[in-house]
Amino acid sequence: MEQDLFAGIDIGGTSVKLAFLTRAGEMIKKWEIPTDRQDNGARIVDDITLSISKELPSESSLLGAGVGAPGFIEMETGFIYHAVNIGWRDYPLKDELEKALGVVVRIDNDANLAALGEKWKGAGDGTNEELFVTLGTGVGGGIITRGQILHGENGMGGEIGHITSIREGGAPCNCGKFGCLETVSSATGIVRLAKEKRTENQSSLLNQLEENELTTKAIFEAAEKGDTVARAVIKEAVEHLGYAIANLANALNPAKIIIGGGVSKAGDSLLVPLREVFNQYALERVAESAEIKQAHLGNDAGIYGAVWLAIQAQKEEITR
Amino acid sequence: MEQDLFAGIDIGGTSVKLAFLTRAGEMIKKWEIPTDRQDNGARIVDDITLSISKELPSESSLLGAGVGAPGFIEMETGFIYHAVNIGWRDYPLKDELEKALGVVVRIDNDANLAALGEKWKGAGDGTNEELFVTLGTGVGGGIITRGQILHGENGMGGEIGHITSIREGGAPCNCGKFGCLETVSSATGIVRLAKEKRTENQSSLLNQLEENELTTKAIFEAAEKGDTVARAVIKEAVEHLGYAIANLANALNPAKIIIGGGVSKAGDSLLVPLREVFNQYALERVAESAEIKQAHLGNDAGIYGAVWLAIQAQKEEITR
Repeated sequence: MEQDLFAGIDIGGTSVKLAFLTRAGEMIKKWEIPTDRQDNGARIVDDITLSISKELPSESSLLGAGVGAPGFIEMETGFIYHAVNIGWRDYPLKDELEKALGVVVRIDNDANLAALGEKWKGAGDGTNEELFVTLGTGVGGGIITRGQILHGENGMGGEIGHITSIREGGAPCNCGKFGCLETVSSATGIVRLAKEKRTENQSSLLNQLEENELTTKAIFEAAEKGDTVARAVIKEAVEHLGYAIANLANALNPAKIIIGGGVSKAGDSLLVPLREVFNQYALERVAESAEIKQAHLGNDAGIYGAVWLAIQAQKEEITR
Repeated sequence: MEQDLFAGIDIGGTSVKLAFLTRAGEMIKKWEIPTDRQDNGARIVDDITLSISKELPSESSLLGAGVGAPGFIEMETGFIYHAVNIGWRDYPLKDELEKALGVVVRIDNDANLAALGEKWKGAGDGTNEELFVTLGTGVGGGIITRGQILHGENGMGGEIGHITSIREGGAPCNCGKFGCLETVSSATGIVRLAKEKRTENQSSLLNQLEENELTTKAIFEAAEKGDTVARAVIKEAVEHLGYAIANLANALNPAKIIIGGGVSKAGDSLLVPLREVFNQYALERVAESAEIKQAHLGNDAGIYGAVWLAIQAQKEEITR
């Protein structure tokens, strides 16, 4: 059967994830190839192109591609200023891919694409007003207003991990500031808090864990068992996160607040107390219209979002 | 000379301000009429219509009207759920005005229209990414993303006055919460802080002022003269405002942050320390691309924004 397909491409430092999706959002095939970082990533576009043409089902045509890329991206032109993990510097990724693939290409960053993916096929239920938060190594964010990503003036829109949560005496953040939300509510931040607090209470279950066993999963499990230290750690992380998203929600008035990333796997153990803190700080009408949900699509969210962008771009091409 | 004109209408509890503007944004005439609140505001639309037809210059035609209205508005339909100051309840203001005036009408709230007005003809220099903050009796806000107002899910977008600035022990706010930005950085909030702090230091110049003389203007003047209490009051108000807008800017990445309302008349005495606090909490790339400016249009900002909306609406009508 002849089929119109779109490619979703997620470029990471070690591998490139690829998938074909239909216009309706059905994932037909998913695979990955290694990221060739030699010569400042000069061969990556060719590798992607070759792999796509090899994997494209016979009698199918490729209509567009969406790409998640790391680093500072100029969204409109798909120009990468600098991607440390890959080696690209002043690299016209969109132009190179469009030339090589012969179809329209759109590029955005991971958190923004995950926000779009969740809107389209995940927890967003097609909402036009979404705040997406990803709690992983860091805290990432993607904001959707009137159905489109909020990029802001120079692509920094949605950088909610660097909202200052602790105004004085906060831990240093990778961004150079102190006390960012990321330092307390990311997986890294939660583990850091646990390390600090378990030394203060030797009877805590957390002290039975080796350094490498002290994960957010283990901390949530200890909290379930009633461990007061684990509970205090989660309370602190949730308090800062709930406060930050409530303040944002007063400005953005989102319909869906979607929590993704590794920490979100805690499910209701995270979402129930988060909702409580959120309600405390959000305006009543804002709280009433905002649903806080766990992300549905996991690591595939970015691929879905990339394809959604590609579909929009292809529609625009046709009507132009 | 025959001229195409647009009406800007700003409906308040005591008066309705009206103006005619050209498509280029030149204000041709400005006047006001009293707000007739009898019978739950039933005659206001007729009063406006009569006044517009009387004032419309001969040989000119009215092409559209933009309206600033108080209360909870459903933006798309221009339906007013409840406007306490006027008496309207479940009132289809847009439909009524379109029927009476015979032109397309657009409605939004004051702060959103002021944000659009400043973008079009004021301090915004035509920016598509703006955070507008008005410091008056309360703290209002209007957010522009991709050139349009951010309304959010149910019209609460931009309600930044109710961001929680003081997490514990804050003053009660009109919204029912405690410690909102509005309780410390509005004119009312600044005066309240001054009243509290001047009793602690009898040598403060602020103690020479009667209750009704204790205005933000007087407080800024005392600070200029070196009064430590006045300076502490301003420092506190600015610290909370700068922190709130920096956190918002990390999410919104605005090009222009425009400060309006009575308190903004302090000019650099407000903006210089505000910028300092802002830079402390905003990401470097966010701070670099954000200009903090005093609003230019004063009380006329809403009229300009209303007309801008009306012009967009009329363009859409034509291309439909």
